[in-house]
Amino acid sequence: MQIVIHLDSKSKISLQVQIYEQIVDHIRAGHLKAGGILPSSRDLSSQLRVSRNTVCEAYEKLISDGYIRTVPQRGTFVCGTVPEDAMSTMVRKNIEKSDMMSSINLPLPYGARGLPGLYAPPDLQIRTDFRFGRSEPHSFPAKTWRRLVLECLGGASKRMCEYNDPAGILELRDLIANYLGPSRGMSVTAENVVIVGGFQQGINLAAHLLVGTNTPVVMEAPCYRGAAFLFETHGGRVIPVPVDENGIIVERLLEHRVKVVYVTPSHQFPTGGTMSLERRLALLQWAAKTGAYILEVDYDSDFRYEGTLLPSLQSLDRTGCVIYLNSFSRSIGPGLRLGYMIVPRHLLNATRTLKALIDNGSPWLEQATLAEFMKNGSFTAHLKRLRNTYRDRRDKVRSSIEKYFGQPTLAGDEAGTHMLWSPPDSLPNAAELEALARTVGVGLHGLPSGAVLHENMLADHERKILLGYVHLTPTQIEDGFIRLAGALSDAKARTSSFAGAATPRCRNGPALLV
Amino acid sequence: MQIVIHLDSKSKISLQVQIYEQIVDHIRAGHLKAGGILPSSRDLSSQLRVSRNTVCEAYEKLISDGYIRTVPQRGTFVCGTVPEDAMSTMVRKNIEKSDMMSSINLPLPYGARGLPGLYAPPDLQIRTDFRFGRSEPHSFPAKTWRRLVLECLGGASKRMCEYNDPAGILELRDLIANYLGPSRGMSVTAENVVIVGGFQQGINLAAHLLVGTNTPVVMEAPCYRGAAFLFETHGGRVIPVPVDENGIIVERLLEHRVKVVYVTPSHQFPTGGTMSLERRLALLQWAAKTGAYILEVDYDSDFRYEGTLLPSLQSLDRTGCVIYLNSFSRSIGPGLRLGYMIVPRHLLNATRTLKALIDNGSPWLEQATLAEFMKNGSFTAHLKRLRNTYRDRRDKVRSSIEKYFGQPTLAGDEAGTHMLWSPPDSLPNAAELEALARTVGVGLHGLPSGAVLHENMLADHERKILLGYVHLTPTQIEDGFIRLAGALSDAKARTSSFAGAATPRCRNGPALLV
Repeated sequence: MQIVIHLDSKSKISLQVQIYEQIVDHIRAGHLKAGGILPSSRDLSSQLRVSRNTVCEAYEKLISDGYIRTVPQRGTFVCGTVPEDAMSTMVRKNIEKSDMMSSINLPLPYGARGLPGLYAPPDLQIRTDFRFGRSEPHSFPAKTWRRLVLECLGGASKRMCEYNDPAGILELRDLIANYLGPSRGMSVTAENVVIVGGFQQGINLAAHLLVGTNTPVVMEAPCYRGAAFLFETHGGRVIPVPVDENGIIVERLLEHRVKVVYVTPSHQFPTGGTMSLERRLALLQWAAKTGAYILEVDYDSDFRYEGTLLPSLQSLDRTGCVIYLNSFSRSIGPGLRLGYMIVPRHLLNATRTLKALIDNGSPWLEQATLAEFMKNGSFTAHLKRLRNTYRDRRDKVRSSIEKYFGQPTLAGDEAGTHMLWSPPDSLPNAAELEALARTVGVGLHGLPSGAVLHENMLADHERKILLGYVHLTPTQIEDGFIRLAGALSDAKARTSSFAGAATPRCRNGPALLV
Repeated sequence: MQIVIHLDSKSKISLQVQIYEQIVDHIRAGHLKAGGILPSSRDLSSQLRVSRNTVCEAYEKLISDGYIRTVPQRGTFVCGTVPEDAMSTMVRKNIEKSDMMSSINLPLPYGARGLPGLYAPPDLQIRTDFRFGRSEPHSFPAKTWRRLVLECLGGASKRMCEYNDPAGILELRDLIANYLGPSRGMSVTAENVVIVGGFQQGINLAAHLLVGTNTPVVMEAPCYRGAAFLFETHGGRVIPVPVDENGIIVERLLEHRVKVVYVTPSHQFPTGGTMSLERRLALLQWAAKTGAYILEVDYDSDFRYEGTLLPSLQSLDRTGCVIYLNSFSRSIGPGLRLGYMIVPRHLLNATRTLKALIDNGSPWLEQATLAEFMKNGSFTAHLKRLRNTYRDRRDKVRSSIEKYFGQPTLAGDEAGTHMLWSPPDSLPNAAELEALARTVGVGLHGLPSGAVLHENMLADHERKILLGYVHLTPTQIEDGFIRLAGALSDAKARTSSFAGAATPRCRNGPALLV
């Protein structure tokens, strides 16, 4: 079969995207009907005289966006069972409702920078991606987890047929409370623990409780944009307050009337600083005086490679102003969608009620399996293993940068799952590096593409690279920097082409770029 | 060991509750220290000279509230690792923060009627509970589920270590879109489907998108209180509009300016009516004219025992005003916490963005397993089996009521997982029946205790019993009504004691009460 696609080879839009967009248009217009077959990638590439890879990339995106699907041994089909007239109904809907948009609380402005969270659809152009927010896939304790899931489903499968406590199953809350004693110096009981679907849901609960129209919310600047946008959907007014290497600058809080202040004291996102004890005490004192709440997002506290892990704000709090949040996304995996809040007693009823209202609690099987995993000691052992693996990878990032780019300027590398690299002045800025790295299949991310907001409050922000590395093997890490160095060398060779091809290529070996 | 507990046998407060409260006081005051052992239930019952059951009930509640926990073969202990001074800190927090409460968006008023959702802590006094919202535990396809979970964890465990698409994994969305075609006459593609954590989260997403301070939201009256409270936490102003046996009375909508109208057209909760086709079309016409959104909660549509399942509002919608919601809580189990929304195209980006913001998507393993379950045909077969089981149980409720109380007056018994019983006039009202049933270990629920709101807009509301029955075996169902009949007979015998013990007791056999 043939399909009408007109490619403009002079367009700035890549050929893959042109193919993608024109197929979407065909589907939307009803030319390609639901259930209808598409040409194979081989046929389409020969029809269009483009590489098969180009067509495959377009198809992959069409699949991931839900337009088409592949049935093994049969072919590629337009999704669903949507007849032509339903499709034109949808188009009609768009027109008829568009004038109502302004009256809807749509968080659409965020669309411009893509999805606000950490999910990114697969990017086929990238082989080694230093994207933040990924975990080491092979580290997942699949074997143990399988055994524990089976045990849970064997003994207590009737709990799949029940509404369980919306605050979380008691076994898990109890184990978390016991874990926080030795690990974070926190004195809490199961009663204080509310199980949530990860950091994001914990922030949502706190925002839903505390933030209404025009509520002033202070965030560290720069910060994680997924949190800022969430406060805004609740009507909050986000006030950025700068951080230095010791965390949020508490004196700068005095300028504002504040209801909630959002902090990441163990490993500030994205600058990587650790809030000093002095700052912690000052922040608590300020909160006690002003009546503000501190939302302590204890991100990355499970991974400290050097120096002391400071006591959490929650453990130092004497007035009940700290809402503490942590998650198993880094320590087990984001696919689990589990985390926990420790709330002060006076917020406990409200938080439990609200958790019941927003989703009736988190899924039982995930909670039950995690409880078994924590109970039999596997969790502590797993964390220890991960910490060693991640430390090795951290070392590899350091040594690779040193090898190919000289003594590295890094921040936040003594803990956690990301660090902030300031490449040497001889290198182009972050946006250019990002583009260049892409040409050799390496995903590098400056602050704007790394889920960061208010990055412009950081000095030299356009020269910072946010490195997520824990999901990459040491070989992948080194290979990524080798290829980056190679691309830089090639680019230099091109721009200084008057000097001939004298600059050594270094795709296959180290080179010092000055 | 001994413990100071002073019981007042003349108090209106039950002995269990007195024991519970005094132990909580001891823990809060630090008299019973964290990790400290409690007397065994046998010892405490002999010390207090009350039945061991009374002590056990108090202990069960203390366990479920997180105060104490039982270690098999070792004893019962005060929870956590909370030293005395931390405890008194907590008490201090309560005092210091209490004056701030008024400035917090706390959904506390709902506390008065307990948790707003369908979770109820175990009630040891009840042996047979006709509570709404439970599923048949033995119906859970544990064996198949175990196999599919293992397959998922075997092949793709790396997806536990990834952020998956917050709108839901594509495989599942595709299967749901395909399922809705034949089963609900809906023409949708995977693109329109957003996976959510059950009905409650779907309602929350719609409310978060559309409802702000003072937004008028119409709800059927009576309705499910968990939904109404949720709209209120977003600032919504809930306007109750009455239903009749054909669903919401559309003409009564004309009186209001409305942004969202919440309906349960397949099986109205709690009255059990099915919205007629005429009403459906009138509602859609009204929405198209006024620009309101319809939130179609297609609750119980999987279980129709008699009559035709009418097309969903979504399938009849031509202007993109319907947000459709369904859940797997009844068809598989509430512990799964999975459901789905079908949103009009112009709301799609906003809904996906918001789902990413509120929890970064639902857990992967649940979604992947459910996709496998739907893909291999198990889901359809399971539904068919469930439908037959539930129909038998429905028949048993009908025949048991007829046997012990005469020809039953039931509503909503031709579909779904609940029905509304109007006991004969000779019987006491719902609240008294509830209390009487409790004395013989039977859980009966009038509208106020059945998660219902605006029940007073229903005629004879104080004489309605909301029967959840699908989780009870036919034997349990009959036994429940036998015991109720017995209790009624006993009560009658007591009140007419001047007539001697002439009224036959019927705890062990049927009796017609007139």
